[in-house]
Amino acid sequence: MAILDLLFGRPLATSEEGAEHVGPTSGVPIFGLDALSSAAYGPEAALTLLIPLGLAGVHYIVPITAAILALLIIVYFSYRQTIDAYPNGGGSYTVASENLGAHAGLLSAAALMIDYVLTAAVGISAGVGALVSALPNLQPHTLGLCLLILAILSVVNMRGVREAGVVFTLPTYLFIGTLLILIGVGMTKAILAGGHPTPVVTPPALPPAATALSLWLLLKVFSSGCTAMTGVEAVSNGVTAFRAPNCKTAKTTLTLIIATLILLLAGISLLCRAYGVGATDPNGANYQSVLSMLLGAVMGRGWFYYLTIASILLVLSLSANTAFADFPRLTRAIAMNDYLPHVFIVRGRRLLYSHGVYALVGLTAVLLIIFRGVTDRLIPLYAIGAFTAFTLSQAGMVMHWRRVKGPHYASHVFINGLGAVATGMTTLVVLVAKFIDGAWITALLIPLLIFLMFQVKRHYETISAETEKLDACATDDIAEPLVIMPIDRWSRISEKAVRFALMLSREICAVHIDTRSDEESKEEDEQGGTFHGVWRDKVERPLKAAGLAVPELVVLRSPFRFIVSPIVDYVLEMEKKNPHRQIAVLVPELVVKHWYQNLLHNHRAQALKLYLLVKGNQRIVVINVPWYLG
Amino acid sequence: MAILDLLFGRPLATSEEGAEHVGPTSGVPIFGLDALSSAAYGPEAALTLLIPLGLAGVHYIVPITAAILALLIIVYFSYRQTIDAYPNGGGSYTVASENLGAHAGLLSAAALMIDYVLTAAVGISAGVGALVSALPNLQPHTLGLCLLILAILSVVNMRGVREAGVVFTLPTYLFIGTLLILIGVGMTKAILAGGHPTPVVTPPALPPAATALSLWLLLKVFSSGCTAMTGVEAVSNGVTAFRAPNCKTAKTTLTLIIATLILLLAGISLLCRAYGVGATDPNGANYQSVLSMLLGAVMGRGWFYYLTIASILLVLSLSANTAFADFPRLTRAIAMNDYLPHVFIVRGRRLLYSHGVYALVGLTAVLLIIFRGVTDRLIPLYAIGAFTAFTLSQAGMVMHWRRVKGPHYASHVFINGLGAVATGMTTLVVLVAKFIDGAWITALLIPLLIFLMFQVKRHYETISAETEKLDACATDDIAEPLVIMPIDRWSRISEKAVRFALMLSREICAVHIDTRSDEESKEEDEQGGTFHGVWRDKVERPLKAAGLAVPELVVLRSPFRFIVSPIVDYVLEMEKKNPHRQIAVLVPELVVKHWYQNLLHNHRAQALKLYLLVKGNQRIVVINVPWYLG
Repeated sequence: MAILDLLFGRPLATSEEGAEHVGPTSGVPIFGLDALSSAAYGPEAALTLLIPLGLAGVHYIVPITAAILALLIIVYFSYRQTIDAYPNGGGSYTVASENLGAHAGLLSAAALMIDYVLTAAVGISAGVGALVSALPNLQPHTLGLCLLILAILSVVNMRGVREAGVVFTLPTYLFIGTLLILIGVGMTKAILAGGHPTPVVTPPALPPAATALSLWLLLKVFSSGCTAMTGVEAVSNGVTAFRAPNCKTAKTTLTLIIATLILLLAGISLLCRAYGVGATDPNGANYQSVLSMLLGAVMGRGWFYYLTIASILLVLSLSANTAFADFPRLTRAIAMNDYLPHVFIVRGRRLLYSHGVYALVGLTAVLLIIFRGVTDRLIPLYAIGAFTAFTLSQAGMVMHWRRVKGPHYASHVFINGLGAVATGMTTLVVLVAKFIDGAWITALLIPLLIFLMFQVKRHYETISAETEKLDACATDDIAEPLVIMPIDRWSRISEKAVRFALMLSREICAVHIDTRSDEESKEEDEQGGTFHGVWRDKVERPLKAAGLAVPELVVLRSPFRFIVSPIVDYVLEMEKKNPHRQIAVLVPELVVKHWYQNLLHNHRAQALKLYLLVKGNQRIVVINVPWYLG
Repeated sequence: MAILDLLFGRPLATSEEGAEHVGPTSGVPIFGLDALSSAAYGPEAALTLLIPLGLAGVHYIVPITAAILALLIIVYFSYRQTIDAYPNGGGSYTVASENLGAHAGLLSAAALMIDYVLTAAVGISAGVGALVSALPNLQPHTLGLCLLILAILSVVNMRGVREAGVVFTLPTYLFIGTLLILIGVGMTKAILAGGHPTPVVTPPALPPAATALSLWLLLKVFSSGCTAMTGVEAVSNGVTAFRAPNCKTAKTTLTLIIATLILLLAGISLLCRAYGVGATDPNGANYQSVLSMLLGAVMGRGWFYYLTIASILLVLSLSANTAFADFPRLTRAIAMNDYLPHVFIVRGRRLLYSHGVYALVGLTAVLLIIFRGVTDRLIPLYAIGAFTAFTLSQAGMVMHWRRVKGPHYASHVFINGLGAVATGMTTLVVLVAKFIDGAWITALLIPLLIFLMFQVKRHYETISAETEKLDACATDDIAEPLVIMPIDRWSRISEKAVRFALMLSREICAVHIDTRSDEESKEEDEQGGTFHGVWRDKVERPLKAAGLAVPELVVLRSPFRFIVSPIVDYVLEMEKKNPHRQIAVLVPELVVKHWYQNLLHNHRAQALKLYLLVKGNQRIVVINVPWYLG
């Protein structure tokens, strides 16, 4: 246990729960890392699609970002309302289940589960991808590095929510701080230069325009830019993790995250236009990220450049942590409704829903291994889940307002309805645009997961129906059980079994299996060395003398030398012959001191126990009488 | 079971034992394959060492072979006597144990066990090596082919001794037949040509002599040639496998094997001298085996050449089978003396000592994998075991005669004494010559194995002393056990457990674990939703009304949410408080229909059973009350 304590921290009592709650300062790194890190790739994703438009494309980025920010603000207000309406955690799953019915809830649950696993996988692989493009020597170890980071994240998260926040605080605030400085300095220079600042390091010239603007292109750019919105869900799902008053703390945290994200997105797009920075071809030889070009143009390539690049790498690879904070809460919520194994409800030694963490780590590892840790192959599967969940959540909130009514009814419905339509459209665009590249995998996995969840629910319902007992304990038919005990030879072990059988019942059957061939047994029987004789001397006679019940000896011949199955057959036969009695099978078992000593013994006791459990029925009970070597 | 039947044959009854016994015709392939196949490499091994002597070396092969044959005849007579003296199997282990004491017996046992595993590994790798040198495309699959042949041998042998004999009969007799024809035709041609026959295909010219003959060289050549004697032990160890009268059948089989081996060895050496065939450098580019050159010289390269080469390849790779016939008998004999796990005594469904086969297959696979299936790396480990066993067996027989005396006392002692000295010297020569190349591994493994066997013996002796019960069953202190039953909530499962507990005893403790935090429980308790209330309504009241014993409810708080360990702690505490009573812990368990449904349930019942078994003691008994889902 000492190693466990060292790695994961000492166990926490249930009453220590409050201490594990977080405030806004650590809430931003824990629940905001995913959303904030997307500032590093959202604008770039949009600008990449605008490359064919040349210099004009760089100008379009500002209105498109404005549209995305408008959507983000709508989603922000919606989630503020959700947090208030669902103080025990109002993730998309809860909102959709309660307002749109179980099917919509499960659709949302499946979409979110897949999306969180992808968040973890994409975050890790993107971080490693960035690291590897900086240090090409590490290229062959991509998958190994991904799994290493996954292992580190697992250990850190197994220590608990609060300790995870501490680890991620520094990189997150470094990331936010350096980018805000970049934006501040850049904007100041641009304003002082009347809108046309001189770059320190001139960015590459933009290519000439190749196509004209179309609606389809605009939609694609918009939907690509919307990837900056993934991760906004996290706070509303994790309300219970916040310090009391938790709704207020959660909303403050959400506000901080969204405000920062808006500042970053708006600042980056404005700087791009001011400095004429567009995306470069990601598959080209001279590829450079938008943020790298912006940094060069505004600040030059000094220590600040490298510090910022390093914080981007770190935050990207740590953004996977949002999945760790949220996935276990989601699976717990689903398991509370019987759609996932109940083990997801159990809190582990550090008050976490540990099995959710195990599941996330396992699934993420599988994804990373299948896709060899390459981000490009994972990306097409991503975002559909998040936007499906957004859409269902917003639609659910519309129904919520229609049900609850209240003072600002119309404006609430309008905001959420607008959000639902916008995110729904985005979902469709993402699905169509990425279908062949891999979105079909997600589109297949979601119904499969829903099917499995229905099966789980059905199983729990069956069990509940079969084991439910509303009335009191029945008191009829309490009679001694019929005891059956296998015996191979007379020893202190069998003596103990006989004595224990006598404590339980006056009706005892001792079963001895005789594997000898006819000739062997004939010969031995003539010499008087039969087990019947031993039984008479060692058991029957003394018990009779003491006035105790005398067990009956049953000798079964086993021509094929099987031991376990004749005993089980006999038990089942006796069970049929005594239809109203409990049958107790007494299994003596030798317990050795060290595991390796098991190699020196047969495992008939274990085999018999297992076989009886599998072949047995309600009326057969197994009594394990252990014998310990001193 | 249908697949098992198809692969390994139907189970055999103990009374069918006689039918599995073999006569000389199938005895030769089963027990002689190893010895006979060595005719294909023994002379070659000797001739290879004689290469430096040039043409003179080829002339020395005849007297050296004569010396080996003399030794072989001595060993033959010794083993005939051993078979008569030990009709239940007189392998080196038995002879050494009975005549030289347990230590010599174990030395012999360890040496033989290692040697049999090496026989299997070397036989398979030599066969695959020959196949691969004929079809070089298969080279990269050497290890895979080795493991494939091992798998085939395992399946064939798991069907039983007799069926294995049938499979190996044809290749063995083809091998003997073709070689005898080669020798017959060659000798006739040589005699007709006055000792100097003209070869059909002229063998490569012999190199000029490089060194002179020395005693050390002679000893090395002799010991290399002696590898032809490995496998002679097999018949004497397997006497019980022969048809009645088994001693006579075994001796006939041994005579056939030794006579054939003498014919082959003598014929090959005489033909080598007559045709001037010497060995070629095995590492050279023009390497050709001695038998291949002899075949070419005597018969030319027609269909007969290819048929003989094919039968040699087949017999080499199948010679591993001798280990399968003998290893399980050896381990059984050792296990009968408590030096190996008793499982080696148990006969499986086909009347074999199946676990001996499993062990052999496992160890051979490990050896093949470690040495990548390359014969050259395995050879230095080999033969030391066989010759150690020979020496101990012969020495044991000397002591046997000195003890038994009898009519031909002096000649018996002389023959066995001569054999012991000769094989003992050979053992030393082999050990010294091959020590650095790998014999040190065998020299290390033998004492390790002996140490392990002593530990096993000690364990069995301890158990026997602790569990032995010579007197009759004690009849005092037969009182109802104290029953402890964990209960989580009121259900039909817990009702069944309560009812069963009532059948066993009037003193019952129901233990409920409360994992709630202080606030939670305070709140719920105020609302009256406590487990105490449920227990009062559902259990206490009706049982009291029916005049039955009322179980006591014990609620244990578990601030760290552990379930199993507080129950175990409570059981151990109760056990201490009731020093003269049996404690029966009643563990209800849900049994699902399909294994995958186990994913949907906690495994506390299993954990509790295991933990109680590990932490428990003689007075704690576990009662498993299963609940089956309908």
